[in-house]
Formats: sequence, C-alpha cells, structure tokens
Amino acid sequence: MDYFFPNIPVISYEGPNSRNPFAFRFYNPDEVILGKTMKEHLRFSMAYWHTLCATGTDPFGRGTAIRPYEESASNDPMELAKIKMRAGFELMQKLQIPYFCFHDCDVAPEGNSLAEFSRNLDEMADLAEELMTQTGIKLLWGTANLFSHPRYVHGAATSCSADVFAYAAAQVKKALELTVRLKGENYVFWGGREGYETLLNTDFSLELDNLARFLSLAADYADKIGFKGQLLIEPKPKEPTKHQYDFDVAGVLGFLQKYGLEGRFKLNIEANHATLAGHTFQHELAMARINNALGSIDANQGDLLLGWDTDQFPTNIYETTLCMLEVLKQGGIAPGGLNFDAKVRRGSFTPEDLFLGHIAGMDGFARGLRIAAALITDKVFDEFIEKRYQSFQIGIGASIVNGEATLESLAVHAHTLDEIKLESGRQEYLETLLNLYI
Amino acid sequence: MDYFFPNIPVISYEGPNSRNPFAFRFYNPDEVILGKTMKEHLRFSMAYWHTLCATGTDPFGRGTAIRPYEESASNDPMELAKIKMRAGFELMQKLQIPYFCFHDCDVAPEGNSLAEFSRNLDEMADLAEELMTQTGIKLLWGTANLFSHPRYVHGAATSCSADVFAYAAAQVKKALELTVRLKGENYVFWGGREGYETLLNTDFSLELDNLARFLSLAADYADKIGFKGQLLIEPKPKEPTKHQYDFDVAGVLGFLQKYGLEGRFKLNIEANHATLAGHTFQHELAMARINNALGSIDANQGDLLLGWDTDQFPTNIYETTLCMLEVLKQGGIAPGGLNFDAKVRRGSFTPEDLFLGHIAGMDGFARGLRIAAALITDKVFDEFIEKRYQSFQIGIGASIVNGEATLESLAVHAHTLDEIKLESGRQEYLETLLNLYI
Amino acid sequence: MDYFFPNIPVISYEGPNSRNPFAFRFYNPDEVILGKTMKEHLRFSMAYWHTLCATGTDPFGRGTAIRPYEESASNDPMELAKIKMRAGFELMQKLQIPYFCFHDCDVAPEGNSLAEFSRNLDEMADLAEELMTQTGIKLLWGTANLFSHPRYVHGAATSCSADVFAYAAAQVKKALELTVRLKGENYVFWGGREGYETLLNTDFSLELDNLARFLSLAADYADKIGFKGQLLIEPKPKEPTKHQYDFDVAGVLGFLQKYGLEGRFKLNIEANHATLAGHTFQHELAMARINNALGSIDANQGDLLLGWDTDQFPTNIYETTLCMLEVLKQGGIAPGGLNFDAKVRRGSFTPEDLFLGHIAGMDGFARGLRIAAALITDKVFDEFIEKRYQSFQIGIGASIVNGEATLESLAVHAHTLDEIKLESGRQEYLETLLNLYI
Amino acid sequence: MDYFFPNIPVISYEGPNSRNPFAFRFYNPDEVILGKTMKEHLRFSMAYWHTLCATGTDPFGRGTAIRPYEESASNDPMELAKIKMRAGFELMQKLQIPYFCFHDCDVAPEGNSLAEFSRNLDEMADLAEELMTQTGIKLLWGTANLFSHPRYVHGAATSCSADVFAYAAAQVKKALELTVRLKGENYVFWGGREGYETLLNTDFSLELDNLARFLSLAADYADKIGFKGQLLIEPKPKEPTKHQYDFDVAGVLGFLQKYGLEGRFKLNIEANHATLAGHTFQHELAMARINNALGSIDANQGDLLLGWDTDQFPTNIYETTLCMLEVLKQGGIAPGGLNFDAKVRRGSFTPEDLFLGHIAGMDGFARGLRIAAALITDKVFDEFIEKRYQSFQIGIGASIVNGEATLESLAVHAHTLDEIKLESGRQEYLETLLNLYI
Repeated sequence: MDYFFPNIPVISYEGPNSRNPFAFRFYNPDEVILGKTMKEHLRFSMAYWHTLCATGTDPFGRGTAIRPYEESASNDPMELAKIKMRAGFELMQKLQIPYFCFHDCDVAPEGNSLAEFSRNLDEMADLAEELMTQTGIKLLWGTANLFSHPRYVHGAATSCSADVFAYAAAQVKKALELTVRLKGENYVFWGGREGYETLLNTDFSLELDNLARFLSLAADYADKIGFKGQLLIEPKPKEPTKHQYDFDVAGVLGFLQKYGLEGRFKLNIEANHATLAGHTFQHELAMARINNALGSIDANQGDLLLGWDTDQFPTNIYETTLCMLEVLKQGGIAPGGLNFDAKVRRGSFTPEDLFLGHIAGMDGFARGLRIAAALITDKVFDEFIEKRYQSFQIGIGASIVNGEATLESLAVHAHTLDEIKLESGRQEYLETLLNLYI
Repeated sequence: MDYFFPNIPVISYEGPNSRNPFAFRFYNPDEVILGKTMKEHLRFSMAYWHTLCATGTDPFGRGTAIRPYEESASNDPMELAKIKMRAGFELMQKLQIPYFCFHDCDVAPEGNSLAEFSRNLDEMADLAEELMTQTGIKLLWGTANLFSHPRYVHGAATSCSADVFAYAAAQVKKALELTVRLKGENYVFWGGREGYETLLNTDFSLELDNLARFLSLAADYADKIGFKGQLLIEPKPKEPTKHQYDFDVAGVLGFLQKYGLEGRFKLNIEANHATLAGHTFQHELAMARINNALGSIDANQGDLLLGWDTDQFPTNIYETTLCMLEVLKQGGIAPGGLNFDAKVRRGSFTPEDLFLGHIAGMDGFARGLRIAAALITDKVFDEFIEKRYQSFQIGIGASIVNGEATLESLAVHAHTLDEIKLESGRQEYLETLLNLYI
Repeated sequence: MDYFFPNIPVISYEGPNSRNPFAFRFYNPDEVILGKTMKEHLRFSMAYWHTLCATGTDPFGRGTAIRPYEESASNDPMELAKIKMRAGFELMQKLQIPYFCFHDCDVAPEGNSLAEFSRNLDEMADLAEELMTQTGIKLLWGTANLFSHPRYVHGAATSCSADVFAYAAAQVKKALELTVRLKGENYVFWGGREGYETLLNTDFSLELDNLARFLSLAADYADKIGFKGQLLIEPKPKEPTKHQYDFDVAGVLGFLQKYGLEGRFKLNIEANHATLAGHTFQHELAMARINNALGSIDANQGDLLLGWDTDQFPTNIYETTLCMLEVLKQGGIAPGGLNFDAKVRRGSFTPEDLFLGHIAGMDGFARGLRIAAALITDKVFDEFIEKRYQSFQIGIGASIVNGEATLESLAVHAHTLDEIKLESGRQEYLETLLNLYI
Repeated sequence: MDYFFPNIPVISYEGPNSRNPFAFRFYNPDEVILGKTMKEHLRFSMAYWHTLCATGTDPFGRGTAIRPYEESASNDPMELAKIKMRAGFELMQKLQIPYFCFHDCDVAPEGNSLAEFSRNLDEMADLAEELMTQTGIKLLWGTANLFSHPRYVHGAATSCSADVFAYAAAQVKKALELTVRLKGENYVFWGGREGYETLLNTDFSLELDNLARFLSLAADYADKIGFKGQLLIEPKPKEPTKHQYDFDVAGVLGFLQKYGLEGRFKLNIEANHATLAGHTFQHELAMARINNALGSIDANQGDLLLGWDTDQFPTNIYETTLCMLEVLKQGGIAPGGLNFDAKVRRGSFTPEDLFLGHIAGMDGFARGLRIAAALITDKVFDEFIEKRYQSFQIGIGASIVNGEATLESLAVHAHTLDEIKLESGRQEYLETLLNLYI
C-alpha cells in the first residue's frame, strides 16, 4: 500500500542518533526487552476517530485538516468511508501499528435508520476483514458512539427516555457483534453523556441503576455471542457532561461492586482523563492494577493548566515511564494495548503531521518502556519500598497483617513504646534516581 | 455562664428585619418546619478545634487570634485546656448550639506519654460531663487526631511503620471510649495523612489493606464497648497529602465494599472537601444519600478559585439550600448533625468574630432549610423530575427497570422507532425557579 | 412581529409572585431606581451568535437546537441569514431587549471571497437598518470573527503569516464600517486565536508587537471614519488557545500602556473569562473600573468546577449583585451594556428555552441591580470601608498619601510605636449583611 | 568547616554514571558551556528560610525536621541564630553553592522592638560578613519579611493602617541597608499579604496606590544609600491572600507602568508561582525576558494537581531545560541567580535530605543547562521559528512591521489574495526534537 500517503515511507527504527523525522529513534518493534519484543509490550493501536475522522474543529473554529485523499471521494458517504479505511490501513502499515480501535459511526455512515446503519457497518466490516487479512493488523477494541447524535443529549443508558436506552442497546448489540466478527480483543464503554448537567432535573438514583442495567445486559449479550475478550469501562470525570458517572477508577470500582458487576468489567485508563479527575496518570493505573482491573490504556497526554481534554500525543517521558512501570508490574497490558486516543493539534494539519504525531507518541512510549525496564531490573524503587515497610513482616506488624491484632493488643504494644523511630521518605533522592534513568 | 465573653448576649431570633449583629434573623430554634423544630432539623455543632484551639496561623504567618480569657491561664496546659472548655460551653450556650465535636488532642494536652495523655483526657472528660449536664449540650462526635504529631508524618493506619499503626490504634481506642463515656452520637475518621506524597516510595496496595484493617479493628472495638452511634468516614481528596485515600464519596463507598465494611461505616460530608475533589457539595451529599450512607455533615464553604481547604463559615444560600434539600429528602440528618468545621478568617481575630462567624453560618443554614422546605412542599423539582422519567413506568421502560428486557428485545424495539421525541431539560427555567425561592 | 415564535407572548413584568414562566418577576424596564430606569441601568443586549447561530454542538456531539423557523429557508444561505435576523428581532422585541451585538459572519454568509462577503454584509445591513428602525432596537457593538475560519488557525493579528494579518485587517475594516453605519455604540476585539499553542514554535515578541500594531491601525481607521463609540478589548486567558495574550484585565492594561494604546481602548469584561483566569467576576470589573477602563460587560456565568467557557445564562444572584455594585459605583455602564454572551444548555433545545434563558438572565441581573442599589443607598459596605482606612486621612497616613513621607520619616515614626492596634476585617459579618439584602 | 554535618562530604562532580547519592552527576561547576562556566551560568543560591529555618510544619501538623546541631543551642535566640547561620555556610560550602538569600527575620530574632531587631540584625551581619569572607559565598538578595507577624494581617504596604505601612517601611529601610552592607546584588519584594481577602471590606484603589507609593519610597532610599543592584518584584497570584496584587508578570508590568516605576524594578520569577497563576514557568520567564524585566529566578517546582505552593526542589528536566533556554536567550541571569526557594518534603526530615534535595535541584538545573545549550547551538527551534515568520521580512509583512501599512492598504492587499497558504505548526515534531535532546 502506498497510495494515500505517497511521500511517506515505512517508518523504521534508526536509533537515537537519527535526525530523520520519519524514523523511530526508540521504537524497535522486534527488539527484546525483559523477555518480550517491544511490539508485544506496547501493543500500539490507532484511534480511528482522531486519525481518520477528525477534521481539526474546535468549539471556536472549523476544521483545518488537509486530507488530499478524501477529495477523490464523490459525495457518496460510503465511498468516503472506504477511502478513510484504506488510508487508515496504509497509515498503520507504514507506522508499524498492529492494532486499531473504532466506534461504530467512525467506520460507517449512520444513514437514516438503524437498519441502514447496520447494513453500512456490515459492508464496511467486509472491507475491514479484507484489509486486516492483507496486513495482519488486528482490532484492539470496538465500541459504539452513544454521545454524538442528538438523541443522546440527555444520556444513553442514563437518558430520561426509555426509547433512547433501547436505541443505545441496539447500537451496542451491533457493535458487540462487529467486534466479535472482527476478532476484537476488547470492547470499551465510555459513557460520554452518562452523567448530568444539573441535579435540579436529574433522578440520580434511577440513572445509576439504569447504567448498571445497561452494562449488565451488554455483558450478558457478549457472553451469549461468545465474546471472549475484555469488557472495559473508561472513566472520565466530566466533559461533555458536568459530571460523568464513571468519574475515576476508584469510583467505577465502587459502582461495579455495588451492582455485582466487578468480575465482568475491567478498566481502560486514559492519561488525560486521569488528570481531569485530579489524579496522576500513574495513580489511576496503579489503582486499577492493584484491584486487578487494569485492562487497557488510552495513551495520550493532557495539559494540566487547561481544563479540558486536549488529547495530545504522549511525549512526556516521565509520564510514559511511570505508565510502563505499572504495565510491567502487572506482567503486561495484553489483551489490552496502548491506544493513541490522541489527535494532532489543530495547527498540525498536514498528512505528515499524522505520522509525526504517532512517531512522537510511539517513541515516547518506547523510551518509557526502556527506562521502566531498567528501573525494574535494577530494583531502583522496589528495594527501597520493601525495606521501608519491613516492620510489617515481623512482630506487631505481622500481627496486624495476619489478622491477629486487636485494638486492645495494639494499644498494649503502643504503651510500651518510647519514641518511635521513623525513616525519611527520601522523595527528592528518589526523584534524582528516576532522572538518572531518563 | 457569662464570664469569658462578657460583652456578648445570648443570641436570639429577632427576625429578618433585625439589624442587630448579635441576633439571628433566620434561625428560630423552636419554630416548626415540616413537622420538626429548626433545632431538630439542623442539629448544629461547634468544632472544638477551629473555635477553641485555632490561633489564626497560616503557612505564611503566626497566630492573630485575640482570646483575652486565655491570658488568665498560668503556663499549666491543663489549666488552659479547662479555660478553653469552659469558654467553649459559654459560647455554645450563648449561640444556642446544642452539640460539639472534638479530637482527643483538642481537649487535653498530649503530655509525654500515652498514659499521661490518657489521664489528661479522663480529667477533661470529668469537666466535660459536668458542663454537659449543666448546659444540656451534647457530643455529636468524637475523633482522634492522627495527623498533627510528627509520628504520623508517613500516615497513621497507612504508615510504613507498624509501631505507628499501633500507636494510632491506641489513640482511637481511647477516643472511642471517651465518645462512649460522653454519649457521643457518632465517631468520625478523617484520614488526614492516610494517603501518599509520591508513589515512588509507596506500597499502595499494603497501605490500602492496612487502612481497611484499621477501620475494621476500630469497628470491632466500638461494638465491643457498646457504641451504638454511627461510625463515619470523612472524604477529602488531598491536603495535607498529595493524595488522600478517602478521595470522595464514590471512592470511599468502593473501598468499603471491597473490604466488606459497607454496613459498618457511613460518611461525614464536608462542603469544602467536596469542591476540592471537583464535585459540588450537593453531588457528594446526594451520592451518599442514594447509597444510604449520608451520616453527617461538616458545614462550611470553600473558595472555588483557591486550591486549599479554606474552611469558611457557610454563607452561600445556594449551597445551604441544596444541602438542606438533600437532608430533607433523606428524612433528616440525625443521628448526624451540621458541624461547623469552619474557622473565622485570619483577619477576623476578635472574640466577637467567633460569634459573628457562627451566626453567619447558622443563619445561612436556617435560611437554606426554610427555602428547601418550601421547594419540597411545592414539589418544585420533584414533579418535573417525575414527569421527565415517566417513560420508565410503562412499556419498554418498565421492562428495563423490572429486568425483563434483554439487549435483543431492546434492539427489536429500537428498530421500530422512527424519530425519538425528547423533551428539553429546562435547566435555565429550573434555575429561575430556584431563585424564586431564595 | 409574531411570526417565528408564535406561541410566545411579549414578556412583561408581573412582579415577584408571578408563577408565569413567560414573565419577568424582577425586570421592570421603566421602573426608576437611583434616578434611572432599569432599562437605562441594564442596557441588555442579545448576542447574535449564541441566540441565532448556535445549534447546540459541543466537541462530542452534533447540534440539538430545534428552530422550526429555519426550516422554511431554502438552501440559500442569504435567505437563511435573513430569517435568522428577523427571528432575532422578534425575540428581542418580545423580550424587551434594546440592544444586540454581532460578529460579521454571524449576520452574513462569508461566500467565496472578501468581496462577496462584503456584499452580503451590506445586504444584511440593509435589513438590519430596516428592522432597527421598525423596532427601535440598537446595536451595542459590532465585531469581526477572526477565529473560526481555518486561515486563522495560527492567529489573526498574531498569525505567522502576513497575509493573514492583512486579511484580518480587511475584515476589521469592514466590520468597523458596518458598526458605524448601524450606529453601534462600541466595537469589540476578542482575540480568540491571538495567543499560542506552544512556545516551541512561537516568536512571542513579534506576535505581541503585531497585536499592538493591529489594534493601533484599527483605532486609526475608526477615528478616520468618524467612529465615536468605545473600542473595547475582551480579555480571556485561554481557550481555544493554550495561552491568550489578553489574559486578564491587569495584563491587558499593561499591554495597552506598553504600546501607548491606553487612551484608545477600554475593556469588555466577561464573567466566565474572569473565572477561567482565576479571578472573581467582581475582581475583573473592579480592576477595570479603578483604572477607568470598564467599558462593557458580557453577562454570563461559568461553572467553577469546569475548566472551559460554559457561557451559561447568569442566574447567580451573588454574582449579578456584585457586578451591578461595580456598575453603580462607576455611575453606569453606558455607552457599554450587558450583553448576554450566554447560550442555552445543549439540553435546552426548544425555541421556548431561548426565552426562558434570557428571562433567567434578565431577572437575575434585575434582581442584582435592586440589591446593589439598596446596598449603596444604605452605605452598607462604604461606611465600613471608609472607617477602616481612616488612618490615611491624618498624621503619618496623610503624609504617605500626599507624598511627603520618606522611608526615613516613616522609620522614625515606626520606632515611636508600641504595639499597633488593628481592627478586625469582619468578613463573616459583612457576608451576613450581603445576605440580608439578597 | 565540618562541624554541623559531620557525615556529609563536600559534594563534587562524579559524572552521570556515578551512583553515589552525595555527588553531582551533571553539575560540574568549572566546566565551560557556551563560553561560561556552569557556576557562572547557574548562580545557585540557598534560600535561608526553607533550608535553615523551616521545621516541616504544615497546616495540619507540627514540625518534623531533625536538626541535631540546633540542640546544642541554649534557649538564647541569638545563639540559635548563629548556629543556624554557621550550619548554613557549612551546607553551602559542601554543596558548592555560591550565593544565599534571606529575609530579615530569617537571620535574626525580632526581639521586642524595632530597635532590638535592628541590633540583632547588625550583630548577625557581623557574623555573616565573617563567614562570607571566609568562604567567598555572596549575597544574591536580601528582603524583609512583611507577612508573618500579626501586624501584617491586613497587609503591609496595603494595610488599612498607616502605622503598619510605616512599620513595614522601617523594616525595608533596615533590610536595604543590610543588603548594601553585605554587598547583595539584588533586593526582592514579595508582597505576601499585599492583596485582599474579600473586596467587601477593601479600598482596592487606595491599596494599589499605596503599594506603588511604598515601592517608590523604597527605590528612592535604595538610590540614596548607593544600592547598585537590581530591585525585584516577585509575582504570585494568591496564597496566603485570596488575591495578591502582584498576580503575574503581565499584571506586574502593567502596575509598574501605571505608576511610572517600570525602569526601577525587574522581576523575580518563581516556577510554582507561575503555575498557580495558570501559566507555565517558561511563559512567565519569556514574558519577563521580552519586556526586559527578567531579573532573577526562584528555582523550584510545584505540583499542578495541587492548588497551593508546594515549593519542591526542581527535578523536572523539561522545566529546567525550558527555563535555561530563556536564561540563555537573554544572555544570562546575572546579576540575578537561581535561588532554591524550595523545601524538602515534610517526610524528608533528616539533615541528609537537605543535601539530597539541593543535589536534586542542582543536577536538575545543570542538566537543563546542558540541554538548553545544545538546543541553542543546534538552532533546533530558532531556525524553525525564523522560517515560520519570514513573511514579515518582505512585502506586505514588512510594511506592517515598519509602520507603513494602514487598515486600508492591508484591505487592498487582502482583496488580491486567493487562498492563503499556511504551514503546519508541527508541535508534535518539535516536542520530539525536544525529547531528542533530553
């Protein structure tokens, strides 16, 4: 394939000293690190919507993106959809991206009815299968867009209208079927409008119950049609809603437990959503990991001085390193992956920028992986932490951990203590160590 | 009692037209609203720490508070503690505040050992009992301060030191005993240092487990000594820690479920903590209420343009109204109450300001109660909401709610729909209605 | 006119007890307060873009607005433009709104060239003049949209392209001419893209110089064509840009002084922009006022827990009161006005909501005016403040103010002081007083 | 000197591969980069208050710092002050820090009167001179603390009390004299309480005028006593005040111009203050630089997810690189320097942490300097920027810059343009380039 981006070569690894903009300096797909290839560790995925559908609009301006290959399309929406898909596969091939993710309406026009939308999706799935076979590229996850159409103005599963709930269910049913057909390894629920604008008009309790009902029905159906992948919820605290019910990892975990859904869903963590919720990316990853719920990652970055989801390509090495540290700690992200839920800036409007953006992100994460692997190999932080908590291995500490202690036994012990000797937390020194590996 | 604040009269209700600064314009304790007296609805409480112990320090300056009655104390810390307590009871009496809340170290000097602290607490409890009997003032809740002493620098229940865990346990044991002795109606856990400064040195998983162990041990002991009140966790997202484990209501509920503690703890919601977590006060109250976990309230307000806990006296009528709306919806806040976890500004340093601050907050909430009661009586929002969600009462909506629907049955229904008719959410109009009642 | 909104009556004042949604409860246009009618005080204006052009899109969804009158338009953009304008005048008449504001591209289609745009604008100005004559409605301010078209992706006056600078100049030239033709009382510059996305690609210094050059050229031309109104800059800190050069009032005042433009421009203050910059609305108004630069007001409100410009109709009585307090202190806002730079929520999608939104805002500000007038009449805060600073009227204080003091004379005085006696700032009490008037 | 920190060696450069915690890996004082030694470029300074006076208190807890050398002091405050100063010089020597900064009350006890404070300061200045001579360490800047004492509760220069204004003037007079005596190269004004808590009790206009009067008097006196260094204002937006008048660089520049002070003051930019104001550190530095007002730097870092001044040691390489880029662009920071206005975390309480914290910061900035120098040498961003704005070198662009253009001439040009060709801003690629150098 060399049709839609004729001036762009296949991007390959040239090492850190290369000054070729269209090369990787850190991502070497087949290089083995800690027993796995970089490709296996990172499981990069292209986000269909940002890369193929987004035009560079923002709330104050029209699209800026220059996509010459789209001009060849007549006004037929299906023809345009196919051109986009073919362009997407060329881009993934040239970037050596092994996975993609999509919403139903990213790949096919919605048409005038559910039935027409369904037919369009099937036709596009035919092409997708053909291109997937040709290229070996796979589907990381599918999903349904339950937030862009005006019918979802008051939510989808949490709409005040039962018809809207039903319509959303129909979309998810089809999207699950498509995901199964295309052998998708995960299915994601991002509840963009599942929240409220004002509590003054909201039945908070019913909406939460309905959200749980919806997820439960979807999980039942996924089981029924033999979906073996992960079902994932993607937390975000707000935007477009004033409050989104899937606010953050801790909140979603509580929600799942309340409704008995905790075994059926894991989480898809996005960096920018984490920071909008007031958490670091690492915090959300770690919180999911220690609760056995880290399913997949939306790899992007936000701007902490801006209050909206900027979805930038991830280039901050601190963030990619700490992310990969969490991934390595849980033994890998599979069957999830690192999906670039990232868009080129509105001012980066050329086709070349689509490649430069992905290279920025892929090299950013490849470097993070290399650093994280070294930190783990050298036990840089692990040893410090192990030593720090050693008092829980023996004596009174062990009695706490093994459940033998009572408030009374602990109080007796406390009365025997003179002064308690504490060690410094050494934060500054640990930050120096992190810098040493960057 | 008229000794410590000789120039301040008993504050009484004079109605909205009074211009007497030392009078209530909205709080009329024995006036009946929706079948209960205002006093019963509001259950006001004085926060011992802010009102009696705080001196007006901030991170950039020394104390400013002028408290002439403290000058009569010699250098004996117990004598000073007793003066403060007597002053506090005079203040509560004059303000008609029926409850108070305290941390162990607010009421008694810590001395040089746990044993000495314990003796000091017992001696102060003698005086408290005497004053409580004399005045009829009761204990809303007790707690232990597990964050101010240097030993808690790395946390208490989540310290890396087992000795610190034990020490904290001893403090909680004593504080529970004191609470029982003083017939406290609740006991609160605010985990001020239960969190982390950096994940680089933190065993996140062990710390969360230990927090659960600690709470479980405390609940066991409370049962054992016959405590019949509510055990409450108070969420806060950060400050002093970079991340506090009890981040917000949703997160705490998830934590409690994970560790099987959900039946044993309810929540104490603070306005300023809500907004620091990115939520409205009403959101946190409502989230607790619909999960049957709204136990008590720390009544203050923050400044949303400032990033720290300002703990201001609550004077914003919108906030007090929406709070009381949630309280009325759950049929009252008892056995919890409205504790003024609020401090006079550093520039409000006279004894008079202690009264003017409480009057500001009490009238603020009294007015909120009056407005909320009218909103409920007139079903201003309830009718709108009921009508808005009526599609879940019948047909496909009912099948969703009663569990008969499947993704397939919903999809069949969706395929029969032409265009879905939606109603406006009418947010602007509902805000106008709210204003009509203010 | 009763054509586009057939079911909506002329909105009239019915007093605070009215429960008619389509009536004013506080805005009584001809009622005299402090010597002027409410209409003269408030000088309300409709924002053409939000009310007539916005469709309810957001970054995650398509338009939801139902505007039946637009369906009668063929596909001819000029016909649609005229329908919108006629609908706008009907709406203003029915709402008794005496002013409107517009961007060039709000009122006329841009066509395929500057020349065509210019012709379209002239044709629309003919209609505007006709409708203005018919209704007596006037133009508060005009402006040019220099941010929506892709050519402005890198800024307008601060673009890296001189051609773009020139194009923007051409647009402003025409917009100024239109404003003069329509007897607009002000002209506004909101530099939506005058800022940067990243300093890595930005010539910061040249861009600021060019912004000043642009404003200077525009002011020269305004003078030349006999514009007698106010030229206004509207600060905003960010969004869509990462940093907007007109960040806040203080920054803009500094910019104007640096480039010798301070006599030629005043400021248009928007509530939501103030809070995005970390300031209260009152702060920005007061800062402009005391610098003799408060020119006009964009009357809306934001959500302080959200990080983007929500442009809500202003219903918070505290905010409207404190705004009107500043307006009254400077003797009125004329020739500026209160422009509702506010949009109905995406869920408020019916034509009725356009009216309910404006009623919410107009009553919100009318109530604010009534309260502010009472606060001024009763000298509630003025007396307190005057007394608070009285030490600067005499003695050492007078010597400071009149310029006689030196560091040495002050030091001599300081050495004579024993303890300095300070008065409480009484913040809580002053908040109680404010509440008494609300 | 090897008395107060007996176990700590002189810290020396061992290169990036060293794993010795008590060594520099990047800071090699005498290594020449771009024609100057690293020492000359970086001009590191110790902040007396954080390093010698801070005890690790925070609003929720007591001090944690372990400083064994202080235990040798009797209860005599002067003796303690001298021990601290000697310890500080040992620390600076061992860390090879060539400068220090102090507030008056950091170095000497305030005593019971201005006269006593003055005598204490003189006595401490004797010791400082002795130690400075001995070690070659110099004073980067002095200042007066006008925010910690209760008399400054309502501000210093902006207090409502003229006596307080005078008292502050006396303190500044003495601090200026001390700075001159100790050959300080700068004098800093941080107006910690120069702001307001609520506008309800504030004469905003008088306070700003008084602030200008104060600064003007101080500058006059500095001239009079022959101070040849820089006078610097340090912006901060808030904390402890709700609003600080010196909000950010742009605001301060405007203030200085308004009062005719712009030639007399430059700025001291702090990283954490920048981000609290909603700006990047680089933004504030660049804004100061292009206005010829970048005087000195407070080198620390904040946590963008926390809303208060955390004053952490600067370890983020992106931030230190972009800072040094601005410093190199203006040809160096002298006579200013990089003052570590940074404190060890409360959990980093050992004397060793004082060293590890400074090493973290010094190596952080040394690495930033190395990277920035390479970026400049290789013209990584400069070439891109120069090319990007080349249209202002010729033709219509040149006419804009040289002042020949008018709105009319530009409009004529614009009408001749077909489509304007724009280049991509290439943000992602530029971020990749930045990463290549890190």
